[in-house]
Amino acid sequence: MAMQPLLKVYGDRRSQPTRAIIIFCRVNRIDFEEVKVDLFKREHLSPEFKKINPMGQVPAIVDGRFRLFESHAILRYLATVFPGVADHWYPADLFTRAKIEAVLDWHHTNLRRGAATYVLNTVLAPSLGLPSSPEAAKEAEKLLFRSLRLIESMWLKGDAKFLMGNPQLSIADLSLVCEIMQLEVLGDTERDRILGPHEKIRSWIQNVKKATSPHFEEVHELILKAKEHTAAKLRSGPSIDLKAASKL
Amino acid sequence: MAMQPLLKVYGDRRSQPTRAIIIFCRVNRIDFEEVKVDLFKREHLSPEFKKINPMGQVPAIVDGRFRLFESHAILRYLATVFPGVADHWYPADLFTRAKIEAVLDWHHTNLRRGAATYVLNTVLAPSLGLPSSPEAAKEAEKLLFRSLRLIESMWLKGDAKFLMGNPQLSIADLSLVCEIMQLEVLGDTERDRILGPHEKIRSWIQNVKKATSPHFEEVHELILKAKEHTAAKLRSGPSIDLKAASKL
Repeated sequence: MAMQPLLKVYGDRRSQPTRAIIIFCRVNRIDFEEVKVDLFKREHLSPEFKKINPMGQVPAIVDGRFRLFESHAILRYLATVFPGVADHWYPADLFTRAKIEAVLDWHHTNLRRGAATYVLNTVLAPSLGLPSSPEAAKEAEKLLFRSLRLIESMWLKGDAKFLMGNPQLSIADLSLVCEIMQLEVLGDTERDRILGPHEKIRSWIQNVKKATSPHFEEVHELILKAKEHTAAKLRSGPSIDLKAASKL
Repeated sequence: MAMQPLLKVYGDRRSQPTRAIIIFCRVNRIDFEEVKVDLFKREHLSPEFKKINPMGQVPAIVDGRFRLFESHAILRYLATVFPGVADHWYPADLFTRAKIEAVLDWHHTNLRRGAATYVLNTVLAPSLGLPSSPEAAKEAEKLLFRSLRLIESMWLKGDAKFLMGNPQLSIADLSLVCEIMQLEVLGDTERDRILGPHEKIRSWIQNVKKATSPHFEEVHELILKAKEHTAAKLRSGPSIDLKAASKL
């Protein structure tokens, strides 16, 4: 008897959208094979991976003959195509779903752009020997702060446990929280400076973590370990260990 | 007898996502009231508009008691909630829809970021007396060129009439083509320099135009007139007429 071809998830756990997909599959007991595409080795630009996703981006999936990229499109697809996924992840109700779509769309040019550009221009680019720009970091920090304030005032009103006060989490909660978790690589002091003033954001992260435990912690292990490693190196002396930092 | 409350579309036709929504409604005979939010007068940041969309962005809609922003979320919502909208705009088929979602998601940080940042830092910011950056324009131009190449090689293969070779257009075709139409404000020479090498993109624009005519032309009238006005001013002398340019 032929085996049903397994869903393949191509990605790197150092990429926050990859982490969101893996956590989603784990929590929803979707059987999948994780195929590592090492971003630091530039494997996403290899001819081999370009056959999977000509765009050269992770995450990407192959489900039988069907290929897809862009993490939000993948999350919507998985939530719709796998019958075991509970409705709250991507509600069938038109109005609830539309509000989730707005958050997912808003994310790209706000929280994601702010957080990813900030991390790139402060920690990541120098550790990879890439050029970084203090002006870009400053602009990104402003956008990141603005995005966090807006999430709190728009979507975490009152004692909302999840975005829009929904009783259970959606793919938008998962995507946005995975993005914010990236700030861990900045170190505890920087993370606390950024998230400290945002109590609602911090409780929301805990709620998403609890709702997806223990997969959330397991999938974030790689970036949390890298952080400890870097912190230890920083304590042991001021010299920058490129090899250790590149594990971020 | 009480009238059914009309759908309200808040926007400015100088914004390409606003144009996409208006064209969509017109083509699909969705009855709506267009409420102008003048971006150049900063009306999107007024307390009055913030009651409609606290994010301070256009377009936004109010449909009865339901409010929504983010143009892609709005297009998905309208395509789903209004029964008269043909399936090809946002296909019910999971696989066709997923591919459209990927294009919509990709758009934000690629074509939109490239085109909008380029136009802002070359024509728009100077005409509005805002700071502009030649470096930002250069970066944006690279991203814009890359995005156009990728659209052609990924989604307009062979003699594809619409994205992914679909026989009819979707909300992704409409959104992306409205973005590209923004290049008109750069003037004919610049537009031709950018779009000249991309024959498939140019035919695709014509196909989308034809499929949505005469609404496409009518909704783009404002930016096309502004272009003519600016071109005439440029011919009549080198002095910059801020008032005319601000009509862009």
